[in-house]
Formats: sequence, structure tokens, C-alpha cells
Amino acid sequence: MADGLNLSRRLRRTPYTDRAEAAGVRGFSVVNHMLLPKAYGRSVEEDYWHLRAHVQIWDVACQRQVEIAGPDAARLVQWMTPRAIGRARVGDCLYLPITDETGGLINDPVLLKLAEDRFWLSIADSDLLLFAKGLALGAGFDVTIREPDVAPLAVQGPKAEALLAGLFGAHVRDIGFFRFGWIEFAGTRQLIARSGYSRQGGFEIYLEGGQLGGALWDAIWQAGQGFRIAPGCPNLIERIEGGLLSYGNEMTRDNNPLEIGLGRFCALDGSVDYLGRAALQRIAADGVARQIRGVLFDGGPGPVCAAPWPVMAAGRRIGQVTSAAWSPRLRRNVGLSLIERGFWEPGQPVTVESRDGACRPGEISALPFA
Amino acid sequence: MADGLNLSRRLRRTPYTDRAEAAGVRGFSVVNHMLLPKAYGRSVEEDYWHLRAHVQIWDVACQRQVEIAGPDAARLVQWMTPRAIGRARVGDCLYLPITDETGGLINDPVLLKLAEDRFWLSIADSDLLLFAKGLALGAGFDVTIREPDVAPLAVQGPKAEALLAGLFGAHVRDIGFFRFGWIEFAGTRQLIARSGYSRQGGFEIYLEGGQLGGALWDAIWQAGQGFRIAPGCPNLIERIEGGLLSYGNEMTRDNNPLEIGLGRFCALDGSVDYLGRAALQRIAADGVARQIRGVLFDGGPGPVCAAPWPVMAAGRRIGQVTSAAWSPRLRRNVGLSLIERGFWEPGQPVTVESRDGACRPGEISALPFA
Repeated sequence: MADGLNLSRRLRRTPYTDRAEAAGVRGFSVVNHMLLPKAYGRSVEEDYWHLRAHVQIWDVACQRQVEIAGPDAARLVQWMTPRAIGRARVGDCLYLPITDETGGLINDPVLLKLAEDRFWLSIADSDLLLFAKGLALGAGFDVTIREPDVAPLAVQGPKAEALLAGLFGAHVRDIGFFRFGWIEFAGTRQLIARSGYSRQGGFEIYLEGGQLGGALWDAIWQAGQGFRIAPGCPNLIERIEGGLLSYGNEMTRDNNPLEIGLGRFCALDGSVDYLGRAALQRIAADGVARQIRGVLFDGGPGPVCAAPWPVMAAGRRIGQVTSAAWSPRLRRNVGLSLIERGFWEPGQPVTVESRDGACRPGEISALPFA
Repeated sequence: MADGLNLSRRLRRTPYTDRAEAAGVRGFSVVNHMLLPKAYGRSVEEDYWHLRAHVQIWDVACQRQVEIAGPDAARLVQWMTPRAIGRARVGDCLYLPITDETGGLINDPVLLKLAEDRFWLSIADSDLLLFAKGLALGAGFDVTIREPDVAPLAVQGPKAEALLAGLFGAHVRDIGFFRFGWIEFAGTRQLIARSGYSRQGGFEIYLEGGQLGGALWDAIWQAGQGFRIAPGCPNLIERIEGGLLSYGNEMTRDNNPLEIGLGRFCALDGSVDYLGRAALQRIAADGVARQIRGVLFDGGPGPVCAAPWPVMAAGRRIGQVTSAAWSPRLRRNVGLSLIERGFWEPGQPVTVESRDGACRPGEISALPFA
């Protein structure tokens, strides 16, 4: 699962890396030029069961914020996304695709509306700041764009609410899904959202001021002792079962939001103007040629899916698996895959050619997995 | 040196990763969302001596190309860089800083001029494609911008020329430093430049068509048997000694090219128009407040510099080391550092506070190291 990672300043440490190391982190990924803890010495399966039952603390500081502020901020954000943002309220979190003029996906951040003229885009793994800056400089928008010193720390799992309400106050319970509020911590006001990269519930604290990172981790860790808290990270099994997509894995610039299942976030009726509109309207009119699906397949736990695995049917390649894991709950492998039109029905038999050379029989599944 | 790296499709494999694995790669870095082999089981010191004496084959496919083509291509490239590109000839490679409107560094690619209206920017670790796309879309430039299927393979070291001339023809010897020519390989025409991220001489083959990667590696490997070829990678000791900077390590968006020693690549006389011009002219007029320098310091081989190390003098922090290594040739540690004005003279005594808590006495050095 893990090869060696050679460290350097370029792979930035986070305000929580010291704590992750003290907690025994054994493997990282790299997202937005920053370390993302991905393994703590327990198996992905052990973490999976723990996440579903208790509560975990995740260093997701790599979810960098692109702050867009100023008179043209809302205009610039809307220009980048097919999702209509006009009705968003301050305090809303909006998951949204960002596309270029071809409809190709640049990123799929969560937008936090801080004020009518101030937004954070909490980004996946691409330098969205550079795209936004380029657009703003090219078109002469009156905005300032920067990466603030904000480091999200996720608290995920069914016990997250009880833990955080005890630590920061009962008002945390009133924060709706994909809404954010505020907590007091160490004399500062900090943003907290009911969100996170799992289906088990929880919150993300957008800590402003990296020097507070250790203290915040410690406070949550201590308060979590009664809840069997453990250090964790986005769990591959849980996110695949839950149908949570990952930019760079399930989607790249070669994909459009319609084929990736993000059509519900795309205004195609002409009511909103944005970069990719003409392209997406054309794609919608033609009908997408491929679409994201689940695949259930046999053969026991497989190797890591580190490059797309061919999905075969009717004697030819009809798609690819881009993330896969053994589901201990379903007792089969689960995968996220992009599948050619004509093979989308749940139950469609396929074969997955995993990297170990095995041809694994399976079938198409709806998402999320049952 | 190496923690675990958790693999996924998002950390893209290259056309040479299979060969690197067969050659025993043990550690990677991640650059431009792609794997960069960084260790082959020998020590950095062993690789250093080998690189200086023989020839190495490096998978540097992570140096992705941003292709900018079309009627406005030259105009767009010039807008992004302070370096005057007007006199560049087809066949030239130009190292150049890319800056935003504040003069902050976005990237430091090598520009390859393929035609009057077609360029490759061979990039360091940031999504320059997104910046270029944003600018072009915002300003309405008539260009196409894409990442072509081009994977640089470097052949570095004093024997590189003899090896490649034997394999591809004597005309390879006529290619000047930072110029490129063409070779025939497997029925295709491929670009070859006399360039590379070392001071030991060598070439980079910009292989177009990833499916040829294994065959190209094998051909060079076989031809290299008489030259003691070894698999290698950019060598930390050699690049620091040579004063070769690394984007993300020695420079970020917080730095301008003048303080990073790239002033010679910045047209400040008003003869060229580009994004960062006003900012850089202002910085030049004020004089830079800090500048890149070498630091020689004691204490034996230290830990990996994975976050900036304070450099102290006169009882306070006057700079930071961002890359460091033990030089077996100089028998001291060498570091690249950004140093406050007033402490720039070679011989200036300093103390380096490395991450292991040690206070290592040392002194400022010119770059490259002697």
C-alpha cells in the first residue's frame, strides 16, 4: 500500500503534522502540495469499523482555502462554476464543480459564503487559486485572491456532535448539514461546518492561525477520550461505499460534471452564465457517452488501484475503475468506475482487470453502494 | 528520509514508473500530481559520486509540458514572464520565472520554443496550465492550452553525451547548451534538449507518446551498459552544491524573482510588458530586503529539511534554510537559504537551527558552492 515518500519543504507540513506524527502516522498522501495523513498503523478495515461506530480526528489541512473577496467576488465565483450560487446565504457550504470553457473539471471544492463579497473555496487537489487569479487578472475583475492561513481539522463519525457540543457548546448541534457557524477557541472565533469527507456525520473546523493547531488537536483529543476517539483520515472503503468522488481519481480535466454524476449542480437552462455553459449544454443535448457507476467484484482483497483498471464487457473495454477497496461489510470489492453508455444498468456483468493481472468477475452497481 | 506514501491514481504514474520499479525504486516525491522517483536503495551520497563520474537515467516525466499554441501564444507567454522572449529562436530553451501581478513566483519553467506560435513550458510543481488558461480565457487570447502526452526522460552525467551520440547519432553532440534538436526513435521523431537538473551535463528527451516509455528506457539502459549507467534522480547534494533552486522549496508565491537571484531574467527597463512589471520595478527601486545565499554549517549529517530551518545571527532570526544536505566533498552541510539584507557577505557567521533541535554553527557562502 505504501511506498517511500521523500520529504521536503515543498510537500508542506500542516499545523497538525506534529500531532499526527505523535499519534503514529505511517503513511501520507500529497494534496495541494501538502501532507495528508493516510495511515496510522491500523488497517483500513479497522479504521472503517471505528469510523462507523465512534469518532475520529483528521488532519485535512490540505483542503486549502482560496479566498476570493471584493466587489466582483460573487461574479468571479459564478463564472467558474455551473452551479447557480445566487441564492446562497451567508453561512452556506455549497459543493460545486469548477469547469473550464470545455466543461472539463478543474476542481470540485466546497464554497463557503462568508459574506456577500467574500468566499472561501475549500479545494480538492489542483491549484484553483492560479485559475481564479488568471481569470481575474485577464478579465480585470476587482477582487483579491489569496490562500489564507486556514487549516481544516475534521471530526468525523457518529459521536462527533456529542464530542464537539461538549467542548464548544450546545449551539454546535444547531448547525445544519452543509451550513457553518462559529465557536470560541483560545480567545479566537473559529468557523465550524457540518461537513466532511465521510457519510458518518461530523464537522470540519476551519482553524485560522496555524500556531493554534496543536492546541486545537489536543483539546479535541482530550474531550474525545470518553468517545473512543482515534486519529484517522478519509477512509477509502467508507468513501467508495458512500459514492464520494475524489478529484484526480474519479475525475480529471478530461471529464465533465455531467458524466461524473454532478448534473444536479449544473444550471443548463440558460439562467446563469458561466465559462463552461455552452460546452455543457452541448454535452447535455447529445447525452453523455459515459457515466460514473459502482462496480462490485470478486476475488478477495486486491492490490491498490494506483492506475485505472480496465472494465470489460461484451469482449471489450467499456470503462475503468479508478478507486477500489475490499468492503468487509459487503464481503466483496467495491469500485468507482466510469462506464460507457449501454452498460449502466445495475446487475450488468463485467470483468475488472486489476493490476495483479487477475480478471475479476463482477457487476455494475448503483451509487452509493447498498 | 522516507515516510510512507499511499498510492492512488491521483498521484499519476509515468511512462517509466514500471521501469523505475524494476530498477528498485524505494522512494518517491510528488510533483505536478505525478510520481518522481527519489531513491533507489543506494544512499544519496553514493548517487552523488556516481552522477559526477558516470551517467544516470532519470524519470522526470513530472516535468509536465504546458503547450501554448496559436496566434496569441507568444503574447501570452510574454505576459506571464519578466524575461524578454522576443529574441528567442526556434530550438531555444529559456529558463524563466513566471510571476503574478505582485511579482510573486508562480513557477520557474523552461520554455521550449517549438515554432513562432507554439511553445512548451516545462514546469516545476504548480498547475501553471490553470494560470495560463485563466489568463487566456479572461483576456480573450486566441490560443489553445493543453498538457500534451510528453514525458521527459533525463540522461545526466559526464558520459551522457557519448552514450546518446552512440545511440541516436553524432548530431546529438552538436546540440548547444539549452538548445534542442531531434532524434529518431522507434519510427518517431523526438525532441532532445541539452539540459537537466544537474551541473554534470546531459540531456532530456521529451518523449511524445507514453506508450514508448518502456522501450526508450530500455534502449538507453542497454546502450549505457558500457558507461556504468545507473537509475537516478535529481540529487539533493549535487543540486544544492550547484545552487540549483527548487520551486516550492527555495521559492513560493511569497517570493519575487529578484530576491531569489533571478534578477538577470527580469527586464526592468520598461522594454517589455508583463504582469508583474510594476511590482518588480518597485521592488528593484526599493532594493530587495532578502536574498538567496548558500550556508555552510557544521554538526555532521543532519535530518531532512522538511520545513524551513531558522538561520540566526546577531541574536535573532535573519533567514531560513529551505534545502540542506551533507556534502561528502566539502565535509560540511550545505544549505540554500533566504537571508536578510546586512548578512549577505560570504563568511558571515550564522547558526542554523535544524529540526533535531541542534544549533549548528556555520557561515554564509556564495552560490554555487566552491
